[in-house]
Amino acid sequence: MLIEEDAYHAFMPYPAVPVDNAPHGPLSGLTLAVKDLFDVRGYRTGCGCPLKLAASPEAETTAPAVRRLLEAGARFVGKTHTDELAWALYGMNPHFGTPVNPKAPDRIPGGSSSGSAVAVAAGLADIALGTDTGGSVRAPASFCGTWGLRPTHDRVPLAGAMALAPSYDTAGLFARDGATLLAAAGALMDPDPVPLPEIPDLLWPADMVAQLDEAPRAVLEAAFGTMPSREVEVYPEGADAAYAAYRVTNGAEARETVLPFIRRSGMPLARGIDGRVAAAAALEEAEIDKARATRHAFAAHLEELLVDAVLLAPAVHAAPFALDAPDEVLEGFRHDAMRLLCVAGLAGLPQVVLPAGMVEGAPYGVSLIGPRGSDLSLVALARRLAPEPHP
Amino acid sequence: MLIEEDAYHAFMPYPAVPVDNAPHGPLSGLTLAVKDLFDVRGYRTGCGCPLKLAASPEAETTAPAVRRLLEAGARFVGKTHTDELAWALYGMNPHFGTPVNPKAPDRIPGGSSSGSAVAVAAGLADIALGTDTGGSVRAPASFCGTWGLRPTHDRVPLAGAMALAPSYDTAGLFARDGATLLAAAGALMDPDPVPLPEIPDLLWPADMVAQLDEAPRAVLEAAFGTMPSREVEVYPEGADAAYAAYRVTNGAEARETVLPFIRRSGMPLARGIDGRVAAAAALEEAEIDKARATRHAFAAHLEELLVDAVLLAPAVHAAPFALDAPDEVLEGFRHDAMRLLCVAGLAGLPQVVLPAGMVEGAPYGVSLIGPRGSDLSLVALARRLAPEPHP
Repeated sequence: MLIEEDAYHAFMPYPAVPVDNAPHGPLSGLTLAVKDLFDVRGYRTGCGCPLKLAASPEAETTAPAVRRLLEAGARFVGKTHTDELAWALYGMNPHFGTPVNPKAPDRIPGGSSSGSAVAVAAGLADIALGTDTGGSVRAPASFCGTWGLRPTHDRVPLAGAMALAPSYDTAGLFARDGATLLAAAGALMDPDPVPLPEIPDLLWPADMVAQLDEAPRAVLEAAFGTMPSREVEVYPEGADAAYAAYRVTNGAEARETVLPFIRRSGMPLARGIDGRVAAAAALEEAEIDKARATRHAFAAHLEELLVDAVLLAPAVHAAPFALDAPDEVLEGFRHDAMRLLCVAGLAGLPQVVLPAGMVEGAPYGVSLIGPRGSDLSLVALARRLAPEPHP
Repeated sequence: MLIEEDAYHAFMPYPAVPVDNAPHGPLSGLTLAVKDLFDVRGYRTGCGCPLKLAASPEAETTAPAVRRLLEAGARFVGKTHTDELAWALYGMNPHFGTPVNPKAPDRIPGGSSSGSAVAVAAGLADIALGTDTGGSVRAPASFCGTWGLRPTHDRVPLAGAMALAPSYDTAGLFARDGATLLAAAGALMDPDPVPLPEIPDLLWPADMVAQLDEAPRAVLEAAFGTMPSREVEVYPEGADAAYAAYRVTNGAEARETVLPFIRRSGMPLARGIDGRVAAAAALEEAEIDKARATRHAFAAHLEELLVDAVLLAPAVHAAPFALDAPDEVLEGFRHDAMRLLCVAGLAGLPQVVLPAGMVEGAPYGVSLIGPRGSDLSLVALARRLAPEPHP
């Protein structure tokens, strides 16, 4: 392992293999952690899954997303834990262990990019690469109190990374502050094809906000509520319909990516994934077609809303739950979180999460959702609007 | 993976790396599976533990026990599943999956050398190397209906294999029949320093047999009951005292071997191991000293009994239980099995297990326990006494 102390259990304990980075660049002096879903030359790629790890040779090439950060000068410090096959939201990996949320040690860190979020929150890395299919950067960023970015779909190459649901998969970032996130995102992608105007319209997504309980709502309102904004409705057919469309289309894609491996390997399934595997396997074609149509209409509606505009949106509905929470909490929490998280995913939009306050003594972030291709200006805007001081 | 079909989930799915063997030798034409606790050059050594696997480099040298079998002409076909850190008896690995018992697919295969037993029982390997600390060859051999050998302690080198409890650890064998077991054991060790006489005394261990229910007892009696034997008492202070001495001394050693890794790694613990870790950590020095004295007296008693004599002993108390058995069954079964299995371990004696019949529709083996150093003649004797025809 390249870092010396990992008291927060953020990193996979791989034998240390040096990884080259450019001596100078915009990320010089910054350390980089990489989710163990991306290939890094000389390392195995475990994907949070013991049988996948066993079958993994040492990678011969480094994934392009990682390479861009190394070429900008970031120094690789290790590969981080993930939920099994990146198909969960809590960071509770029964095989490799659950990384410790540095700001709320008795609560989940969130996932699936659990180790990346924890590495940044614990100060073990300045920048961490993750993936976000359904919320795997945004949820742990909110739970661990870091900055996080889910980029516009297809804007950052995913070669050399495990595919889960290709029309949703993105390579996202964690960073300790907005300035670092902007620098890292700038290294990861070309300049914005569709930058935001200097002063974009701010939209208040009433039907997203309505899903929050009092305490998280207070944090969101304290962060963004006093800004002049226009109230909008995000879900044309309601949040449940949008989430159902996400679930079905996502499951239909997972059926082509991870399900064959799961079947072939005879792997025991972690709690939660077993149900998702069964549901994905049972999907019928008519159901999938209908969900795709709903998704298409949803994306078109969001595209219309977000012309020169951004949503002042909650990232998730609540603070992370306690590690010893009962099964009912685990199942319900996921659905409540996904009703909010599915918005950016369904429409392929960039979303920036930033720390905003505490709920139940644990971090709670807020977010901006922007139009496709506005990623870098969206991060810059988030820095200007950030409720907490960040250098 | 070197074998093409692993429907019984016996093997770890490692990338295939060829392993050399001698072109001619006593094991020519026989295939060899190796428990993933032994180093094999070019392979990682996972020890049934995801974090151990992640931290494992590819081995640079092959363990001497494996090398002896390769040098005798056996052809390596793959590394087999084991219980986590070899510290369990059932073969239920929540991380890598449970190998399928070919002769009782709805029941446990037994462990910790689960994949080795299954590979042989399924005909995927003629010979398999395992380890036996507390019963990890003998229990799965009985459950899967194969031949098995726990050798005299210290007779087969354990370099390049994970240590669990060094004064108990042995490298043992599975084979599809007695002739193959004898050939493999002959390759693994030098000629017997203390061979059995042509016609040894046969001892009937009344206090071991008393632990059996009707059905397994009937199998044992059908196998050995008609032979002229002398009744003896094996446990000078009772079976519970012997098992307690095993548990304490074993735990005291595990505290020095696997416990530091478990603590350092932050690994989540499989069901069952968690309790053994806690119990080992809590042992007090006086308790350990007392258990060592009990062990010493027990071994001296067995040494006296077994001059030119062998025990016609049960290996375990019962057939393997069902995969969906409740927690109470799991905990109780282990204790009942260990009261019998601890005999050879406490005294460092060789024990041969051989198929003898069926109990509840699943295999049930019987065994011979011989004096130290009698391994090869003990296997030869077992072939002569074997209740079932074996070529």
